[in-house]
Amino acid sequence: MAFLGIDLGGTKLAAMMFSDEGDVVAREWCALNETGGETVGSQISGMIRMFAGRVASIGICVPGIYRQAAGTVWAPNIRSWDDYPLLAVAKAAAGPVPVAIDSDRACYILGERWKGNAQNCNDAIFIAVGTGIGAGIISGGRVVRGANDIAGAVGWMALERPYTDAYDNCGCFESQASGDGIAKLARKLTHDTPKYSGKLGSIGPEALTSRDVFAAFEERDEIAERTISQSVEFWGMAAANLVSIFNPEKIIFGGGVFGPAVGLIPEIREEAEKWAQPIAMRGVTFEPSALGVDAGLYGAVLIARENSS
Amino acid sequence: MAFLGIDLGGTKLAAMMFSDEGDVVAREWCALNETGGETVGSQISGMIRMFAGRVASIGICVPGIYRQAAGTVWAPNIRSWDDYPLLAVAKAAAGPVPVAIDSDRACYILGERWKGNAQNCNDAIFIAVGTGIGAGIISGGRVVRGANDIAGAVGWMALERPYTDAYDNCGCFESQASGDGIAKLARKLTHDTPKYSGKLGSIGPEALTSRDVFAAFEERDEIAERTISQSVEFWGMAAANLVSIFNPEKIIFGGGVFGPAVGLIPEIREEAEKWAQPIAMRGVTFEPSALGVDAGLYGAVLIARENSS
Repeated sequence: MAFLGIDLGGTKLAAMMFSDEGDVVAREWCALNETGGETVGSQISGMIRMFAGRVASIGICVPGIYRQAAGTVWAPNIRSWDDYPLLAVAKAAAGPVPVAIDSDRACYILGERWKGNAQNCNDAIFIAVGTGIGAGIISGGRVVRGANDIAGAVGWMALERPYTDAYDNCGCFESQASGDGIAKLARKLTHDTPKYSGKLGSIGPEALTSRDVFAAFEERDEIAERTISQSVEFWGMAAANLVSIFNPEKIIFGGGVFGPAVGLIPEIREEAEKWAQPIAMRGVTFEPSALGVDAGLYGAVLIARENSS
Repeated sequence: MAFLGIDLGGTKLAAMMFSDEGDVVAREWCALNETGGETVGSQISGMIRMFAGRVASIGICVPGIYRQAAGTVWAPNIRSWDDYPLLAVAKAAAGPVPVAIDSDRACYILGERWKGNAQNCNDAIFIAVGTGIGAGIISGGRVVRGANDIAGAVGWMALERPYTDAYDNCGCFESQASGDGIAKLARKLTHDTPKYSGKLGSIGPEALTSRDVFAAFEERDEIAERTISQSVEFWGMAAANLVSIFNPEKIIFGGGVFGPAVGLIPEIREEAEKWAQPIAMRGVTFEPSALGVDAGLYGAVLIARENSS
């Protein structure tokens, strides 16, 4: 019998059906309704009904926090999803088919462990760098969840004194090295370097994104190089901290923003080697996500499978 | 039937016998033989033989890393204990009585969870500040061990750029805020403040310890206040990082150096509140160790009990 994985993102909804043999047999996706709330719930219900008759179990990956005990979701990028009762909504659409839900960060590392770069690992961490930063952590074979299902909020890691207001809304590490953080630093450096005449200056501060910075970095743009060099330092320090704290076998880097940074992994490792507990550092490899944008879907299918027996 | 806990420290060996009802029925201790190696093993064997006929199970807490698979110990402060076969040595002395071993950091948090300030917690962390800094971490009800039993090396946490040579041997956080780090900073500030005429200047740089700094702090000594203020900042940042990463119910502060710092816990919390993920921060309490120097002994007795059934 087949299994269905659903990945709810901030802007789209994707689904993947897996055969019992582990092959992808169908994919679907649609753009998310921007009004949020129940309209997004209806989109998920529709996706479930499209597949429910053909699958043994359904898993859903959500962009935020899944409160296991209540069956509700907090998703900062979906309107009115502060405490959305997704489990009840999904179950109503799924009928007799069981439904499991987990946070995106947990699904990423579960997906990599099942079919990606963390196979056979009992101790592995997925650092997801997107608009924000979070980590999915498997320690001793189990996902680290914490007392309120919000463990892995590594974007809040303190990595540099003194505290500044810029950290108020998203934390020090995220403020410095997320997609938004990269764009913000490039804007600041462009502004502070009057004699700079490169590409980033012509984009205009409002429109500048981390994608522009990575593109300029490829062309050895001066501001882009200084920006990315600082991000590498922060990514290295944060990864080092996770190595010292968890003694994992693998650190997997992924997420929407991290894609173009895959080539920087050797430099990130070099930075981490300065900081981390040396024995733990020797025992870990740093790798890119093998599943890319599908990591959440694979994780969702995995939790569907594990919830089916 | 009774249980025996043995706490191997860097300078002494302590034992505590617990009745089945949970009462302490006997205690013993001796100074550790400084020649290390087998002589320390013999002291442990002697301690075991003193009690073995009267107990159902024995637990040993060791100052370093216990390699579960090999049954060996790495203890940096005991000579020739790079890979000491303690399990085999202890079993030879214990005869038919089962023996369990764990690292001090794991025993601290297990002890606090059993009889101290982390009772009924499935997510709790013990930050041990002594000559060095380490953490015992319970996540989802289980001790976080890592791939090579060296998880919890939080003394290596990166908390401030740029990297300096001072971090080479023990890591950034430990270099800044362990007992040695506190003494080192006070020495530096004393040296850099020529007009300072307080108590710490008269002790002499070689002899100055964190204990002297805490004593001077009580008397509002200027150098001591600046030193401790910086330690509070680092302790707060490190605790914040553990809160964001683990979403625990409790952070327990203990260890030989931390004793006199118990009164600073509200200030450490205030610092952590700046940095940590806010929801996780609201859900955690910061508390001193309830068991103090006995935390390791309680943890050792607990692993003995759990290994007896």
